[in-house]
Parts: sequence; structure tokens; C-alpha cells
Amino acid sequence: MSLPIKLHDRHFNFVNNNHLGISKPKTKLPNLKLKFRTKPIYHSDPILSVVYNSTMHASSAHPPQSAVIKSSLIDPDGGALVDLVVPESQRTAKALEAEAMPKVRLTKIDLEWVHVISEGWASPLRGFMREDQYLQSLHFNSLRIENGSFVNMSLPIVLAIDDETKERIGSSNDVGLVGPAGDLVGVLSSIEIYKHNKEERIARTWGSTAPGLPYVEEVITPAGNWLIGGDLEVLDRVKYEDGLDHYRLSPQQLRKEFDRRQADAVFAFQLRNPVHNGHALLMNDTRRRLLDMGYKNPILLLHPLGGFTKPDDVPLDVRMEQHSKVLEDGVLDPETTIVGIFPSPMHYAGPTEVQWHAKARINAGANFYIVGRDPAGMGHPIEKRDLYDPDHGKKVLTMAPGLEKLNILPFRVAAYDTVEKKMAFFDPSRAKDFLFISGTKMRAYAKSGENPPDGFMCPSGWKVLVNYYKSLQTEEASQQQAVVST
Amino acid sequence: MSLPIKLHDRHFNFVNNNHLGISKPKTKLPNLKLKFRTKPIYHSDPILSVVYNSTMHASSAHPPQSAVIKSSLIDPDGGALVDLVVPESQRTAKALEAEAMPKVRLTKIDLEWVHVISEGWASPLRGFMREDQYLQSLHFNSLRIENGSFVNMSLPIVLAIDDETKERIGSSNDVGLVGPAGDLVGVLSSIEIYKHNKEERIARTWGSTAPGLPYVEEVITPAGNWLIGGDLEVLDRVKYEDGLDHYRLSPQQLRKEFDRRQADAVFAFQLRNPVHNGHALLMNDTRRRLLDMGYKNPILLLHPLGGFTKPDDVPLDVRMEQHSKVLEDGVLDPETTIVGIFPSPMHYAGPTEVQWHAKARINAGANFYIVGRDPAGMGHPIEKRDLYDPDHGKKVLTMAPGLEKLNILPFRVAAYDTVEKKMAFFDPSRAKDFLFISGTKMRAYAKSGENPPDGFMCPSGWKVLVNYYKSLQTEEASQQQAVVST
Repeated sequence: MSLPIKLHDRHFNFVNNNHLGISKPKTKLPNLKLKFRTKPIYHSDPILSVVYNSTMHASSAHPPQSAVIKSSLIDPDGGALVDLVVPESQRTAKALEAEAMPKVRLTKIDLEWVHVISEGWASPLRGFMREDQYLQSLHFNSLRIENGSFVNMSLPIVLAIDDETKERIGSSNDVGLVGPAGDLVGVLSSIEIYKHNKEERIARTWGSTAPGLPYVEEVITPAGNWLIGGDLEVLDRVKYEDGLDHYRLSPQQLRKEFDRRQADAVFAFQLRNPVHNGHALLMNDTRRRLLDMGYKNPILLLHPLGGFTKPDDVPLDVRMEQHSKVLEDGVLDPETTIVGIFPSPMHYAGPTEVQWHAKARINAGANFYIVGRDPAGMGHPIEKRDLYDPDHGKKVLTMAPGLEKLNILPFRVAAYDTVEKKMAFFDPSRAKDFLFISGTKMRAYAKSGENPPDGFMCPSGWKVLVNYYKSLQTEEASQQQAVVST
Repeated sequence: MSLPIKLHDRHFNFVNNNHLGISKPKTKLPNLKLKFRTKPIYHSDPILSVVYNSTMHASSAHPPQSAVIKSSLIDPDGGALVDLVVPESQRTAKALEAEAMPKVRLTKIDLEWVHVISEGWASPLRGFMREDQYLQSLHFNSLRIENGSFVNMSLPIVLAIDDETKERIGSSNDVGLVGPAGDLVGVLSSIEIYKHNKEERIARTWGSTAPGLPYVEEVITPAGNWLIGGDLEVLDRVKYEDGLDHYRLSPQQLRKEFDRRQADAVFAFQLRNPVHNGHALLMNDTRRRLLDMGYKNPILLLHPLGGFTKPDDVPLDVRMEQHSKVLEDGVLDPETTIVGIFPSPMHYAGPTEVQWHAKARINAGANFYIVGRDPAGMGHPIEKRDLYDPDHGKKVLTMAPGLEKLNILPFRVAAYDTVEKKMAFFDPSRAKDFLFISGTKMRAYAKSGENPPDGFMCPSGWKVLVNYYKSLQTEEASQQQAVVST
């Protein structure tokens, strides 16, 4: 059921893909007719609630969809959430099997991908990509599924191995996966090994091969010249033991929590930076608008990315502390907000990556996705410009195959209003009153211990950042001291 | 109607996309189940035959499909062939209008694209791409059309302008297009101007940004920093007056010709090189197999590419002469072969470009497309390897959104069998008997005047090549002479 609704306010537009017929001349995003999908709202009855567990689906190519109660507002891609954790009863046997297989050693970031795949964030993907999936992802940002339709899949989710490992695997059909600490993590079965053309992968994923792309330098350049695909099973849920595991809610757990709270809309906000009052304005404004539109209980999924980020981003533990202060301070309402960690590593691949960020949130049960200026973007590593056109992310998101069922919420940029002394939506008619505080500028403030303008961020959240940068400086100073003393 | 047919012979497989569900483990191309679509065959009655002309469709976003008789074996993308030639009765008025508009000067290759678009090879595209089409092409290799389905569109078909031209256009809604010779060619209306990020376009289209990509160096590097999209109309069919225009059959003319010959299957062969006996073997073998499968009158569309090619490729006029000798010599059967020129410029963009080559042939009425090793590929410009994995072209073609209705015919490689003294399908069990004669090697033979092994190419065709390279040497010598004399 799809119902066109006309919004008179232009703070943001609800967009889905159905408008982008190529015969419409001069279709520009801000002029798209407003339309969003109102699905029949399902308030799950806890008694009927069915857990998507591995015994039901893990080993079945055709999950019994008809038997599954959809405890969500939006179906997972492919119809059922993938869950690749071996049931406890079979764990010992599976571990014994795995011990006998040739081993592939995972890097820290490989393990983040194992986490992502095993919990179904990439549903219907059931393992690291084989070549046919890799090629579809690389060329079409989507995968064709059995029924002929497409699911979005914009980033190649692949595992690289070197010549020596390939040699060691030989003609084995399955391999054991060993974590960075040497522990047995799981199994990849019915494997396929194919060439890792790094140049092509980088060019097609980032639209650039410039030196200095963070994920490329960290992950791809040092990786081997082969990719190994296959069906994944993990012996246990991936844990990090960093005091943040309780934030790492799986898509299944999130869906259950949305049900428990009887959410009739879930809007996801992806971030990898501290939450300032501009973000909060936007999230609160979104909620207000969803209420105006007739939703009774919209829930915000505040969803910081928890995997690899570049060294000058604020680390996850500091961000999580900052986010909790924002909730404690009441800048965001804890009653209508769920904070979870999205376990994916960051690619900084702009319009290609934002599709992944949105697609994974479909699997987590969000039916609205907020997208801002230059999502997953960064400065060009060697030229003085943004790597991506800041508007392309949201445009591509509204066009992307497989994201049709997700309501995209593009938002206007917020900035510091020096007259009102608070973060507000930028008003171009009095542009000179607004101060843009970029991530770089925010970090510069925090590093120097200088306070940002009043109303930029709640004081307790700001204090977390200041303390972090102070500790960094102390650490640096003591390192320098150590170098001088030796 | 779709009917699975099992072929027992493995010379080639008929493939369409329906198999590529991601849940099928280890799906490798050679093991795909054989299946092709047998459409109800329509032998057009010449009396009923309707011409798709510009008065019917040129100005209509919704062509009256129900009124159109499909004089073909396969529907054009979008349902009806685009034809953007202004009817003769309106030509003078349109030219007067165009004269008053700001002008955009076309390069030789821009004009080749005008040719391509205006005749409907890129149907349903009706002009140079606006940004929403450009982004879909760049990221998804496809365009979503009004009914929600996808047509393939792997190459951005765009027109670049420089800052000065953009300035001159100002806020005009339409521009006149002026050919390289200064003649008024047509109009681009309801224009949209957007940024030309060359690095991103190159990286996403070629999967490489290495210096030395022929189309990049010839077209993109010297081009302006803006792209201009809009609806195209041309005042007259694009002609080249090079003695080859009679070979330049439009998709509409080809479809009529296939009808006239009562073809019940059309198999297209794209090429940019002289036809040797390996090619001929393959084309004749394909025909034989189509007959074995029950088709009564399969027609070969021998379809050399006529637009830009790199300087060391054999020029179009020489190739056309060579092709005509191949037909005169009876290596290919003139009764069941149609030779036409495909007016597109060559990108040398491998798996991305082969989709364009196939898609354009759908519009030309071919329902079978032959694809070989490394289609549209070349050596890496700065590394000692192929730019693309030679198998990726055919794999990507079988996966590509929008090409589902086309039957893809991957073929085994042919080589010179030194025992049988003829071109034959390569037999790996006696690999040492086979001699691979690459394009480079063939050119080296022809340049040195040395004959290739007997049976490599028909003698009259070979003579055409030898004469061409002789004339080149004479020309070079006289140029050197001229340099020495001055």
C-alpha cells in the first residue's frame, strides 16, 4: 500500500525511488513530489513473537518465510534475517570440524565483517562474497535474488588472502577462520578463490584511486592478491570485551526492541562523530514531523558506526560516552531513542557507502533513514576539494536499486545561528548570521580547550571531548618525554 | 513465455540472468543451467508494418505502445524505439528557432553520440544525460523507467562544455548544437548543467585512472568541467559522406530488414577488428546451432563499430572493405548476413562497455548476442597485464540489470590449429598444436608483408590489410621525406 502525502513544510522531503523515471525532464531532488509509504502497522503480540534463530534459517537456502512472523515495520532484504551463529548444541562438533580445516587468519577489520555478516546486517548475504556477488556489487551496487528482484549491496564484502594462504588451502572446500588473537572464530565453506584486482576494486568503489583513502591504505593495499568467498558460520557471537558490547544490538535484537516499544515508525541516524545540537535539532524535528504525519510512536535509532574509522576521528568509546551524556542531558529523549552500535567498518566511500549504511538499517528494522550533506564523505586526499559532490549521496540513495521500500529523509544543513545563539536550520536569506562548525573545527576547539559557542553542544557532552583531547595531549607529551629521555 | 532447453554440446552456453540468485553457492558461468527464452515468433506482414517515426513518438513521453506493431523479435528498451529526427515539414521552423539559441559546439565524437541517441540505439534515452540519469548510469549501470523496471545503461552518454560556454548559455533553457564543420545539427532543450567530475567518471567507468586510456585521453581529459543534459532533436539524420553511409543502418532500418527477411532469430556480432576465419567459424557455428535448436531462419548481424577507435586499430573504411571480401569469398553467407555499422565511439571499458554494446543491439532488434574473451578490453596502459579479467565481460553481461531479455552466447576461444591448418576452437587437451594470433600479431604480419598461416583469413580479405599497411608505410616515408627536405 502506498499513499502519496503532500508536505507543506520544506524542512525535509520524504522520498522514495518510484519517481525517478528517466523521461521526467529536469527532475531535481528538492522538487520531487513528496511521497512515502505507509505500511500497515504491525504491533507485535509478544506471545506470537518468533525469534529468527539459526536453527530455523542458518542452513536453509529457502527460509520458510510463510512460517515467520514479521516482527517489524519493514522486511529484511531477502525476506528473512540471516543469522549465522552455530547453535550451542552443535558448537563443539563444528569447532572440531574446523580444527581439521586449513586456516585463514583474520585481521581486526576482517573480524568486523564477520560480525556484520553473521548477524544479518548484510542479509541476504550468507558469507564473504563469491565472484558473481562481487561483480554484481562492484558493477551494479545490487544483487539479484532468486525471485528476480534486487537487493542493494553497494560495498564488496570480501575476504582477501595472500599467495601463501591460497597455496596452503589447496583444493580444500572449506576453511577455518582464526581471529586476530588466534582463537577459532568460524568456518567458511564451499569456498571459491578468485583474483583481487585492487585497482579496479578501489576505482569502482571510491570513484578515485588517489593515494590516502583511509580504508584503502589500512585494508586493501596491504591485503593479498586473492579473494575467498563462501558460506560463513561463526561458533559464537562476535564480542569485543571493551565495555561496549551491551550497545552492540544485533538486527534481531533491535527488531525485538522496536516491537517491545510498539514503534510504528523507526528512523535511523547513522553517525561517526559526536552529537552536537544541530544533529539533535534534526532528529527531534524528524520525530515531530512523523508525529504530525500521524505516527503515534516513532522511535529514533541513534546508530553510531563502531568498526574501523580513520585515526583523526573520535574513537568509539569516547563517542559512546558523549552520546550517553546527550541522552542524560535530555537533548535527546531516552524514552523514544535506542542507542546501538553499528558494527561495520567505515569506507569513506560517499555515495557508494551511504547505500550500505541505509541497507543495513533496513535489516535492523528501520523504515526511515535520515541522510544529510556529504554522507560518508571526506576531503579529497590530495586535492583541495570534497572527494564527492556533497549532494550526490542523498541523490544516489533515492535512486538505488533495492532501497525502494525505505523512506529516505534528506535534511537541510544545520549551523550555529549567531543571532539566536543556538544550532538552527541554515537560512540562506541571512547567511551571514550562521557559523558552520565542521568536524575539523570542532576537534580544533576541543584540542585547544577553547569552548565552542554556547548552544553548540550540551556542556557534559562537550566535556567528554575536551577530556579526550587532553588525555591525547598528555599521552603525546609523555611519549615525547620518553623519546627525549632515551 | 520462457522454456528451459538443455543443450548437450558445450561449445557455448545460452545464458540469461534468471539463474544468478545469490544463494546458489559456487555458481560458475560454465556450470549455469542452459536456458534461453523462446519468444512467440512474429513474422511481420509487410502490409501491417508500421514505421516508428518521429511524428509518432518524438515529442511524447508516453509513446502509444498499444498502437505500435512490434516488427521485431525483441522489444526495444522502454517499449518503443526513440527517433529524434525532426520531421521534414518542421525542419525550417526548428532551424530558425535553433539559430536564436546559445550554441554548443560539438566535437567529432560528440556528433557520433548525437547520431547514436537520435536513432534510438540508446532507447529510451532521449538526449544527453541529465544528472539523475548520469548518476544512475555511473553507479548502477542502469536506468529505472516509469514502470519501475530497469533498462541497461552502462556508459554515461554525456556532453561536456567548458566554463566559457556555460557562461554564454546563462539561464537559457535550450541550446543549439553546432557540428564540427560549423553546421547547425540540432537542439538540446530543457537543459540541465552539472559538474563534470572527471576523476570519478573515469574511475567508475573504467575501473582504472591509469594514464593512457584512449577515450579518456581523446575525449575526457580535454573536455570542459561541466556536463549539459537535455532533450535532443536533430534537424536531419547524421551522415558522414565517406562512402560508407549506406552501411549505417539505423535500428529502425535493421528491424525492418530482419522482418523483410523473415528472421526468426537475429544474432549480433560486435567487432572492431578485421574478420578472420576464427570469427567466421564461430559465427557459422552459432548459426548451425540455432538451426539445430529449431530456428528456421537465423540471421547474422555483422556489426562493426564505426565511431572513435584508438589510432592503432584498423580504420573503419579498411575494415568495411575487408568485411565485404569475407562475404564475397563466401566465408560468411551473404544470404543470411546483414552488415551494418554501429555508430558508437569505442570506450575500451571492458565489462562496463560490453553491456552498452549488447544493449544497443537489443534496440537494433537482435535477440542473441555473441560475446567472447575480454570484450571491449585492451592491455593495461601502464602495467604488463590485461586491463580487465578476460572472463569478466561475459560474466557481467549475464548479470546485468536490463539485459534479461537478451540471450547471451558466450563462445570458446578459436585459435590456429597447426595440425589441421585452419582456425578451430581451442582444444586444451592438445594445447601445443594451437597458435594464438592476437590483433597485435596480425597487424605485425600485415605490416611486414609476411603472410599469416594458411587458413587464418581469406586471401582477398588479407590483401586489403596488407595494402592498408603498405599505404601507411608509404605515407610515413613521404612524411619523413618531407621533414628531411625542409
